Amino acid sequence: MNPYQKLEQLGVALPAANAPVAAFVMAAQTGNLVFVSGHIARREGRPFAGQLGKDLSTEDGRSAARSIAIDLLATLHEHLGDLGRVRRIVKVMCLVNSVPTFTEQHLVANGCSELLLEVFGDRGRHARSAFGVAQIPFGACVEIELVAEVS
Amino acid sequence: MNPYQKLEQLGVALPAANAPVAAFVMAAQTGNLVFVSGHIARREGRPFAGQLGKDLSTEDGRSAARSIAIDLLATLHEHLGDLGRVRRIVKVMCLVNSVPTFTEQHLVANGCSELLLEVFGDRGRHARSAFGVAQIPFGACVEIELVAEVS
Amino acid sequence: MNPYQKLEQLGVALPAANAPVAAFVMAAQTGNLVFVSGHIARREGRPFAGQLGKDLSTEDGRSAARSIAIDLLATLHEHLGDLGRVRRIVKVMCLVNSVPTFTEQHLVANGCSELLLEVFGDRGRHARSAFGVAQIPFGACVEIELVAEVS
Repeated sequence: MNPYQKLEQLGVALPAANAPVAAFVMAAQTGNLVFVSGHIARREGRPFAGQLGKDLSTEDGRSAARSIAIDLLATLHEHLGDLGRVRRIVKVMCLVNSVPTFTEQHLVANGCSELLLEVFGDRGRHARSAFGVAQIPFGACVEIELVAEVS
Repeated sequence: MNPYQKLEQLGVALPAANAPVAAFVMAAQTGNLVFVSGHIARREGRPFAGQLGKDLSTEDGRSAARSIAIDLLATLHEHLGDLGRVRRIVKVMCLVNSVPTFTEQHLVANGCSELLLEVFGDRGRHARSAFGVAQIPFGACVEIELVAEVS
Repeated sequence: MNPYQKLEQLGVALPAANAPVAAFVMAAQTGNLVFVSGHIARREGRPFAGQLGKDLSTEDGRSAARSIAIDLLATLHEHLGDLGRVRRIVKVMCLVNSVPTFTEQHLVANGCSELLLEVFGDRGRHARSAFGVAQIPFGACVEIELVAEVS
């Protein structure tokens, strides 16, 4: 199955790609690497605000990270024209808006990593860093960026 | 106009490149990608300390980010010999020293992004992540790293 | 001396490479770049928890960062089969679990950077960012990722 068939099987409809809210672009390519900008969590088209360990549970964060993964795919689709051109998701960085006592950033990040594996199979296997940050633009609960190798 | 003429038009004089304060280098190249180390905000040659949301305003942070962009260009100039060899600013990561309630990291980061666009035009259009961190070396208010594609 | 002889001279025995604790891999290669996942500090095989500026001193953090560097080498050895294939350590990102008043992240990161220089010599000279984060998975005191160029 190609990535679009996988998304359909998962019941995922790709949204329109986000426009950047500032002086940058959502994806920049160099050679066959695409660097995708940090995408913040959204709900009903607006920033999904909150801190893990205070306002939101680990499961909330994991669900937000899965939504961001879908937005990242929308951006890659917009940039590439065809998600079939993704040869490998290389690297994911997942930032979790965390109070100083919250230590489950890896479980939050799994919401993103697992969707990428479901959609791309072995080509979705990526290196990753996940950690807790003091804040995120618009108070969003999670922000994720990635690097993909494309053909 | 080449990047130096643009800088002159903007009234920006490139400072001497910073020396690393520790066991690393300010820029490392692999193929035609240059990874530039995180540069902290400086004022009058010393770390510009402070936290956004407590000691400093968003406008202070934006101005600090613009200064760091100039320091990043000084490092690229030192590394490349000629800023005209920059084919693309690919990726910027902007860390903002933030109290847990400050949520305008994207506006701070614009200080850097806008200078890069002014100097490089379309070649300055980059992917970006910006977020709030708990602290930065020397208590600096902002730290920024970038990846550039060069010829 | 090759990297293994250097490690022996330093009295360092490479541990078994860590397995990822979540839905990702410890290293992903694209072309001749290897992106190594964020590795958290471990002590006696378990996460080494604590915050700099509260539970742990700068020297504790530096020692943790050195241990992580050894774990990163174990992962590179596992991925490459031979550390002699490392042409250059390109980039290191060091996250320090910091209370808001701790500002010596660069000294913590030196524990990693210095080991890389000792093992690889000039090929170990890397770009770097170091900063304080709100938390790290499992409460670990330090997390480090790197990018290496390989043959």
